[in-house]
Order: sequence, then structure tokens, then C-alpha cells
Amino acid sequence: MTAHRIGIIGLGKIAQDQHLPVIGANPNFELLAVSSQRGLSHRDARHTFQDYRELLKLPELEAVSICTPPQVRYAIAREALLAGKSVLLEKPPAATLSELEDLRRLAARTGRVVFTTWHAQYNKAVKEARKALAGWSVRRLLVTWKEDVRHWHPGQQWIWQAGGFGVFDPGVNALSIVTRIMPEPVFIKTADLSFPSNRDAPIAAALTFAMNHGEGDLQAVFDWRQTGPQSWDIEVETEAGLILKLSQGGSCLEIGGRLVVKEEPAEYEGIYRRFDALLNARQSEIDDAPFRLVADAFMIGRRVQVEPFED
Amino acid sequence: MTAHRIGIIGLGKIAQDQHLPVIGANPNFELLAVSSQRGLSHRDARHTFQDYRELLKLPELEAVSICTPPQVRYAIAREALLAGKSVLLEKPPAATLSELEDLRRLAARTGRVVFTTWHAQYNKAVKEARKALAGWSVRRLLVTWKEDVRHWHPGQQWIWQAGGFGVFDPGVNALSIVTRIMPEPVFIKTADLSFPSNRDAPIAAALTFAMNHGEGDLQAVFDWRQTGPQSWDIEVETEAGLILKLSQGGSCLEIGGRLVVKEEPAEYEGIYRRFDALLNARQSEIDDAPFRLVADAFMIGRRVQVEPFED
Repeated sequence: MTAHRIGIIGLGKIAQDQHLPVIGANPNFELLAVSSQRGLSHRDARHTFQDYRELLKLPELEAVSICTPPQVRYAIAREALLAGKSVLLEKPPAATLSELEDLRRLAARTGRVVFTTWHAQYNKAVKEARKALAGWSVRRLLVTWKEDVRHWHPGQQWIWQAGGFGVFDPGVNALSIVTRIMPEPVFIKTADLSFPSNRDAPIAAALTFAMNHGEGDLQAVFDWRQTGPQSWDIEVETEAGLILKLSQGGSCLEIGGRLVVKEEPAEYEGIYRRFDALLNARQSEIDDAPFRLVADAFMIGRRVQVEPFED
Repeated sequence: MTAHRIGIIGLGKIAQDQHLPVIGANPNFELLAVSSQRGLSHRDARHTFQDYRELLKLPELEAVSICTPPQVRYAIAREALLAGKSVLLEKPPAATLSELEDLRRLAARTGRVVFTTWHAQYNKAVKEARKALAGWSVRRLLVTWKEDVRHWHPGQQWIWQAGGFGVFDPGVNALSIVTRIMPEPVFIKTADLSFPSNRDAPIAAALTFAMNHGEGDLQAVFDWRQTGPQSWDIEVETEAGLILKLSQGGSCLEIGGRLVVKEEPAEYEGIYRRFDALLNARQSEIDDAPFRLVADAFMIGRRVQVEPFED
């Protein structure tokens, strides 16, 4: 089988740090083109465009990875599908759930592949946690996702705007692990959303979840005000008393006190292996569960005003 | 074909005003049982329960209409489906989108019918508006949904709690008309949500929508502070200049200045005709588009604090 000829739309940090090197190292992909509004290019790309519409006109192009900010992803994905190209979407896959639903319709209509990626799911520790929990009932879940926004998003204003998701930008990574490993669906029961008085997006959130079986104690705490050590931990306890600890963003797993997985993250390598398989099978994979939990949290959440945030 | 034996769970205002008389007048349904936590009963019902779980045990029961507050609808619907009963859901169909998605899975798994009702869609004027707009492009949409919350929801505290939806409780009726009549999908572009400083739900909302074709001027204004005349109007203008006006909550339709439909609402008669057909065909109808727009509005909306509201 020949390599998939792919283009990257949007050459920001995530494209430079992950998509470009991972595509470069995967023999099943050939980087045909890149497009960058700011006029960036890359030595591996045969073609470079400023306008993604020009990129989409390449007849030999099979698929595009859309690495722009989420606000414009839907419009680009739609044009790509209508141009007959398959689409890989960075997280979150769109600005709203309705946009994502329309991409599902378009995938069916055009017969092209739509792939929503949630990079945190592509850790070996997450895969093993999912296996270990299958068939069990959970009685306790504690998600602790605390990081320093000044370090990770210095001066980025869009994350604080309405629709920028605020602390749910990292928080949805945790939710994408939760929806992947939990042996049954979880639902948002309550959400306390802390909005700085000078911002339109939450800086912290405390969630409680419900399940259908049992009266579990299921919680998540997201906080962007963490200085010092950062926490990306998920602890799960089954009815049988087994305790699983995922730490370091899903790259380490302890089960019953024993270290089972500790690996350097290779999330994007896993993403492109999966995309290769989906393209070969002409099959879409549209996972909207993590995004739906975010929308539910905003819809039923209680807003609390906290001190102004200046970066 | 024998009549569908049906039960009503929750005997609040909407059950008493609409479901009971409409079922009573439809020969294709037989009211087998009602359940009411407060111990209400109805002369037409052969059985009366305080606990809906007892109602669900009736072997001859085919379906239930769930008319409780939205917070508990999902849990009841789930138990009903697992007990082999079909389910009609009042609006909104669940407390969160994730709950509704789980009901979709359960409908498929149990082979029973799930029917999400949006009563405003069952007006002849809405049906005619949909027909008139089919195939056209829209260049202007103005939804004006303004009513007096003190009149329509006197002393109801749950509508002001987080998860009570606030002004989106009536607003989703307008959105359910919009998703029904518009010839292409609309997406929330911006949302300004006005929260009284002493409440956890919005008292007013201003929405703008986007479409894929053209640069339309698409807006909705919801307000619960309207005294005097109440407004439930939707105006649509096509690219060709044709103007449609739906008024009085979708019961009147003017096209190009000419009155086309003016009818007393018979929404619930239409709902039960549809449920009869779905039960006979063993086919679910799960329309989540209006609810999804509400979640999107909360997720990307900007919160504005307004004066306290006392009722």
C-alpha cells in the first residue's frame, strides 16, 4: 500500500512539536503540503500555502490534519470533506457540539474519514487501565488536574474568551481518559465553575459525577492556579477494593500499589497509527463523549466569581 | 390493532392539562396507570401508584409518558426501558446531553421506542413553514421569545437553580421550531447570558447563529422580564426576499404578508398521533438538536450579571 499523502493546516506549537515529527517518522504517511496563515513552511513539505483552500485543491492529497485553533476547525473540516479529503481533528474537534454533529453527517455523506483525536487516550497506561477496569463496578473516582496556566499558556488571550473553554482546555484531556477507562458511562451531576471577575472562561472547576450502578464517590478537580508541582492524576477504586492510579497525565499506571506501566508519552505516534488504520478501512472514528461532558458541565454548572486573573 | 396500554409518570401541570385529556380522547391509547409521588390519581386510570417502580411492573403496560421534572427523567426512562417499556419524554428529554445519549444506546439495546417530544414542533404553522422554506437559502432570522416568568412560573424555584435552564426552558421551544423549519443546520456563534446576581440560571439570552451558506443575520432574543403583551415570534427572510412570520408560539403563519395558518394549538394531539405511529413501527425518534443548541449556548456563552430577581 502506498503512503497516505497528507497535509497539515495550521503550523502552531502542536503541529511543530508533534504532528510534523511524527508524520516524518511514519513511513505510512507522506507530508505533501502545509498551510500557514503566518506564512510558515517546513522542509519536508513538497508544497506550502498561506490559504488552506489552495492546499485542498491538490488532487493527490488524501487527508489533512487540522491543527488550527478550535474556532475555525469546523469550517475548514467541512471544506476538506466536500473537497473529498479525509480529516484528522486536534482536540477539541470543533467549537460546539452542533458543529461536530454536522461533521458526522458530512462524513457519512461524503464517504470520507473523520477522526477526532483525544491525545491523552493514546497512552499505554490508559489502555491497561481500561483493561483492568473492564467488567468491574467503580466506587470511587478522583481526578486531580492542576497546572499553572501562566507556564502552559503564557499570554494566550483566546483561552480566556467565551468559547475558549478555560480550564476545560486541559480538563477535557482528563475527561477523555475517564470516558475511555470507566467500565460504564458517567454523567455530570454537579459542576462548580470558578470564573475570575475579569474573564469569560473558568479558571477552576469542581465536578461530581453520577453512574447508573451504586452510589459512588466520583469527583474531578481542575485548577489552573497551581504553582510548584503540577498534578495530572486519576485514581479509581473498584467495589472489590482494587485501586488504580494513573499519574503524569496518563503515562504511569499503578495497580494495587504496584507500578505496571511507566513510559515516555508517545501519544501522537499512536494517533497516526490509528489514522493509518482508519484511512485503510475507510472508517470514521468520532468520539464526542469528552466534549459532551464539557458542554454538560457548562449547561448545568453553577458559576462562582473569584478574584481577577492577570497574566 | 389493540390500543397501546400506557402509563403516566408524574402528574404535574403538564400531565393534567395535556397528557391526560389527550390520551383520554385518543382511541389508540388506553390509560392503564398513573404514578404520582404526591399521591394524585385520575378517574380514567385503572391503577394508581406512588412509586413509579410499581407501575413499571405491570406486565400489560406497553409504554410510559414521563412528565416529571427533567432532573429525574433519565433514571426513570432507563428503568422503564430495562423493564421492556417504551418511553415518551417531555421536553427537555433529560438533564444533560450525556444522559440522552445513553437513552439512545438503551433504545438500541432493548429494542424499545424512545420518543423525545418538542411540543412546539407539532403546530400546523410550523409544518407549513418548514415546507415553504425547504430548498431556499435564509438571509435573516429573528426569534423573539419574551414572556413574564412571574406569570408562567410563579414561585418555581427549580428553574432558577443550576441545571434548571432558566430562560432556556421556554427558549428551547423556539429553538425546537428553528431546527425544524430551517433548511440547513444553524450553529451558535455567540451567546450573551444574563444572570440575575442572586440566581444560578439566566433570565435573558441574546444569541447569534451561523450557517454554512452566506452571511445571514441570524438572531434570537429570549427574555423572562416581559410584562404586558407576550412575544413568541419567529421571522425568517429568504435570499429571494420572501418573509415568513410565525407568531403566537408557532400557531399562526404569515407568508409574504398573507395569513396562511391560524389555528388553536393542538400540539399534544399531534405528539400522541406520532407516538402511536412510532410504537406501531417499533421505531425511536430521538431529536437532540434543540437541546444541543442550548448546551452549546451555555458552553460558549458570555455571562453578564444583571440586577437581582425576586418573585
